Amino acid sequence: MNTDTICAISTAPGVGGIAVARVSGPRAIEIADRLWHSRRRLHEMPSHTCALGTVLDTRGEALDSAVATVFRAPASFTGDDVVELGVHGSAWVQRELIMALIGAGARLAEPGEFSRRAFAAGKMDLAQTEAVADLIASTSRAAHRMALSGMRGDFSKRIEDMRRQLVELAALLELELDFSEEDVEFASRERLTALAAEVRDSTARLADGFAAGQAIRTGVPVAIVGATNAGKSSILNALAGDDRAIVSDIHGTTRDVVEDTITVGDYTLRLSDTAGFRDTADAIEAMGIERSRRALGRAAIILLVVDTTAPDADVPWQDVVSTINEAPDTTLIVAANKCDLTGSACVQLPPEASRAIVIPTSAATGAGIDSLRDALANACRSLTAHTGDTLVANARHHQALRDASAAAARTVDALNAGIPGDLVAQDLRACIDALASITGAISTPEILATIFSRFCIGK
Amino acid sequence: MNTDTICAISTAPGVGGIAVARVSGPRAIEIADRLWHSRRRLHEMPSHTCALGTVLDTRGEALDSAVATVFRAPASFTGDDVVELGVHGSAWVQRELIMALIGAGARLAEPGEFSRRAFAAGKMDLAQTEAVADLIASTSRAAHRMALSGMRGDFSKRIEDMRRQLVELAALLELELDFSEEDVEFASRERLTALAAEVRDSTARLADGFAAGQAIRTGVPVAIVGATNAGKSSILNALAGDDRAIVSDIHGTTRDVVEDTITVGDYTLRLSDTAGFRDTADAIEAMGIERSRRALGRAAIILLVVDTTAPDADVPWQDVVSTINEAPDTTLIVAANKCDLTGSACVQLPPEASRAIVIPTSAATGAGIDSLRDALANACRSLTAHTGDTLVANARHHQALRDASAAAARTVDALNAGIPGDLVAQDLRACIDALASITGAISTPEILATIFSRFCIGK
Repeated sequence: MNTDTICAISTAPGVGGIAVARVSGPRAIEIADRLWHSRRRLHEMPSHTCALGTVLDTRGEALDSAVATVFRAPASFTGDDVVELGVHGSAWVQRELIMALIGAGARLAEPGEFSRRAFAAGKMDLAQTEAVADLIASTSRAAHRMALSGMRGDFSKRIEDMRRQLVELAALLELELDFSEEDVEFASRERLTALAAEVRDSTARLADGFAAGQAIRTGVPVAIVGATNAGKSSILNALAGDDRAIVSDIHGTTRDVVEDTITVGDYTLRLSDTAGFRDTADAIEAMGIERSRRALGRAAIILLVVDTTAPDADVPWQDVVSTINEAPDTTLIVAANKCDLTGSACVQLPPEASRAIVIPTSAATGAGIDSLRDALANACRSLTAHTGDTLVANARHHQALRDASAAAARTVDALNAGIPGDLVAQDLRACIDALASITGAISTPEILATIFSRFCIGK
Repeated sequence: MNTDTICAISTAPGVGGIAVARVSGPRAIEIADRLWHSRRRLHEMPSHTCALGTVLDTRGEALDSAVATVFRAPASFTGDDVVELGVHGSAWVQRELIMALIGAGARLAEPGEFSRRAFAAGKMDLAQTEAVADLIASTSRAAHRMALSGMRGDFSKRIEDMRRQLVELAALLELELDFSEEDVEFASRERLTALAAEVRDSTARLADGFAAGQAIRTGVPVAIVGATNAGKSSILNALAGDDRAIVSDIHGTTRDVVEDTITVGDYTLRLSDTAGFRDTADAIEAMGIERSRRALGRAAIILLVVDTTAPDADVPWQDVVSTINEAPDTTLIVAANKCDLTGSACVQLPPEASRAIVIPTSAATGAGIDSLRDALANACRSLTAHTGDTLVANARHHQALRDASAAAARTVDALNAGIPGDLVAQDLRACIDALASITGAISTPEILATIFSRFCIGK
């Protein structure tokens, strides 16, 4: 039960047509009413209705005309009484309105405090509130869809289903301990083993989707590689649609890993334009090549640009092949570039790179660039092919899933080895706790403080 | 009557906790309902109520949870049906929501189009809608108060009162023309002369307040002048509260006119730190001095910094005195600086500068800086002392007031000269038209387009 009333501007910072201040808490209506001048007092208004009036500043002078909307507990975002005041989006009005609300008895909300109250009131679980923050930050359809699914509770429901079943069996198992003299088995060992194995596998699968989830949330890492002068920067520019990377005909131009973000289909791509892999005595260029190798290791997609006019060029096959050997999920797309000059897309692929997709391109004429985009989008889609619908992009959830999976695995092993119920119960409890920490069924003030401090004020 | 329905994001651009899309027009409710998924259809909702639901994207997939508020015509901002959709403030959600609304039959609003419709529906007159834009942009209490007064119609009411009285007399005057054979006077010449004279004076007074209004709206221009090394930059920094201007002990440091904006009391001040007025052979420094002279000419307040430790220093009295002779309304404040070193505030004022306010200061210790702020705030207040409550900060209104005043003056002269009614009526009509253009009682599509194009989209 919240005893104090909080307030904040909930719309984006800065000047706009309108801005909305949110007030939430047991005194929200009373406090807002003190600044409210209208025929209709706020405390007389039914829930989910709004009225036009004037808000007053700290001196009691008219500050702005406003629309006030009243949401009465428990039918509000936070579960408490909430008043939203829509005013003109002037910096001055926004500041004075918050000052006036504070003067009337509210307190400035901490970052994420409205969401934290919604969580405390049981309006959303922890994973759902975390998804709201991801939703607000999402910049592509795929990231948005993932966050929306989390906000609507799809992920939470899966976790909660597992946890509930485990809790039932754990209760039976713990009941056995009370009757330990009598050597009874309330909990079916068979059912428990099957369930623990299922939880072990489900949580492991969800945890495995983390890299894909992260890639979708923050952008799929794509490394553009190729011999110097193969046209990597030009391809990047053709994809990005303007001249962000420096393009020149001098070998070794691109020394830095240029990060560029483009949208392809539903996905955001983070493109790293890497230095050529030419053997060099230049120390700075050598450092660039080392950075390129690291970018290659992180990439979900490698885009290898090959100059079809220079069949003898030093294509860095060795680096590419060793990367895809180490990370077989990496997609290799080969742009057979400058095809406008050769009229051919002939690229010699080493046997290890036989899964590569080859697309004839010309950064100069734009030929093949759309096909290249399609290939990139398909590769992004395939990232999530084996992970199912629910993707985990949150590092906290990832860790908890791994903990849950490990505890479930220990439970299965213990059960298979016929280890006594009290020891099995310990592992089972660890698994349940890990799952509970995701949805916040179990949480500590410290964890909550860490999570909500990353939210914006007003949310 | 609007036939099409418009939509836009009305909150500040960027990412925030929540964002609000506004839909207005005859089909607003129907269009929003197409994207609305909830137990409660929007068309079933009474005016001024809101409901929680899900908004769908162009594909008909869930885009976000949302709060929809319905305002039914004519009780809305625009006078048409309006739906406001409050969603999470993600860039993606905002974009997709607008796309979905457009897909469902709305059109993206032009800048200021909601306000233009509010004007067309008679919700606000033109001067009031223009004040809304000023309100949104205001950054000080004085600017805010001026805009709020305009938005609430104080200025419009004065203009409209004058216009209505003139229109009555003009109608009588024009009636006389129909009976011109009979030499009757329906319109009392005495009353007409008195009224025209009053309008001439009132409009002139309002037009005279334009400089003050502008200064309050965009910041009161303050020129800091003084001999090189008198401590101008240090005083500026002490007023501004940090180290924005470069301070050094080398003569002639401040070559550029540094514009700094500070808030003093209710006012925003635009401070120009000027180069010293030392005679110099340095061409660049000489250019700086020329710029300083121009800044002096524009200033509403001159802040002259005198070094009390250097009584023989080259105080630029000549420039200051000639400025205040040309513009007697300019306030001269003298900071008797470095008073911590001399323990005295002895400044020799030339007789022409006897109205100056002298304040002992020390930028080094901070002594006198608060008194200096008070003196600056008082000077700002006195800017508006002779202009009355209503200030005009809008160039369009200023021009119309001058036109009205000139036409009223011609009317008075014509009446005094006994010129025939039909010629008087012409001047009277010009005066009425000028006043009508302010409130928009008479307006052309071109004028409206110009005015509203300066608004932000969504307002």
